[in-house]
Amino acid sequence: MSQAAPFPAPGDKSASEEGSVFAPRFDAEGLIPVVATSAKTGEVLMFAYMNAEALARTIETGEAHYWSRSRGRLWRKGEDSGNTQRVVEMRTDCDQDAIWLKVEGAGAEAACHTGRKTCFYRAIPTGTPSGGVALRFIDAERQFDPESVYRHSSAAKGTLKSSK
Amino acid sequence: MSQAAPFPAPGDKSASEEGSVFAPRFDAEGLIPVVATSAKTGEVLMFAYMNAEALARTIETGEAHYWSRSRGRLWRKGEDSGNTQRVVEMRTDCDQDAIWLKVEGAGAEAACHTGRKTCFYRAIPTGTPSGGVALRFIDAERQFDPESVYRHSSAAKGTLKSSK
Repeated sequence: MSQAAPFPAPGDKSASEEGSVFAPRFDAEGLIPVVATSAKTGEVLMFAYMNAEALARTIETGEAHYWSRSRGRLWRKGEDSGNTQRVVEMRTDCDQDAIWLKVEGAGAEAACHTGRKTCFYRAIPTGTPSGGVALRFIDAERQFDPESVYRHSSAAKGTLKSSK
Repeated sequence: MSQAAPFPAPGDKSASEEGSVFAPRFDAEGLIPVVATSAKTGEVLMFAYMNAEALARTIETGEAHYWSRSRGRLWRKGEDSGNTQRVVEMRTDCDQDAIWLKVEGAGAEAACHTGRKTCFYRAIPTGTPSGGVALRFIDAERQFDPESVYRHSSAAKGTLKSSK
């Protein structure tokens, strides 16, 4: 998909890279990848996708909206858990096919559906053979109990694969 | 693609989220998305993809390797520009389908093929209508001249769409 209202179609390489018109490039499924970092700590909180509607709503409201691939619908971050994300800064990259959000989370600022602050709570050791890598838990303390938080929400109805 | 040597096939939801076995999930094209941030400043430098080989080499060498979608080949970051990336920390997310690299760049630490430190050098204003958004340049100072750096490299032979 090269165009998706309300955004203009992407221009040539020079326009994409050096221009000031926001003309995002969506992938074949109409999605654009998004990295959310904590405005407070700089930590990467989560990785997700937006479709054109989620992107437009995020720009218009300053509240992070994503496209849930597992649930197949627009997803206002925190609609079930209360862990909404206010956008402090929003950027796009050189070829306008990725988005970076600096966000301020509500409450416990737990971005991950497992109850943790970040989805990236396990480290991959480097300088070792890549077969049979053992992950190391880091920043893995739960801020909320996902069982109780999602019990009465749509996310608990068996359709939630992950926070994405 | 659910399995790619030398990595084991992904397990169930519980194994993916709470286990310590690294079993990355590649997409239909055999790729996994990667966010690289500066270990020094916390800034998001670039967004790219790895295939299984790039992921294995990154783990084994501690040097960032990606899959270049535009060139259709393995890409050791900095092989043309000299802006290599040493991995300070590497993490995966809850469902093991994304990678976060904290890196230390060589030289000018310019991660973007346009010569800038970061690929994310333009901000998208929020709280405004999403049609006709004007980007604002930020952190956009060039650290090197891409014309001269890539002139004699494979990247200059008309095959480089972007740094990805």
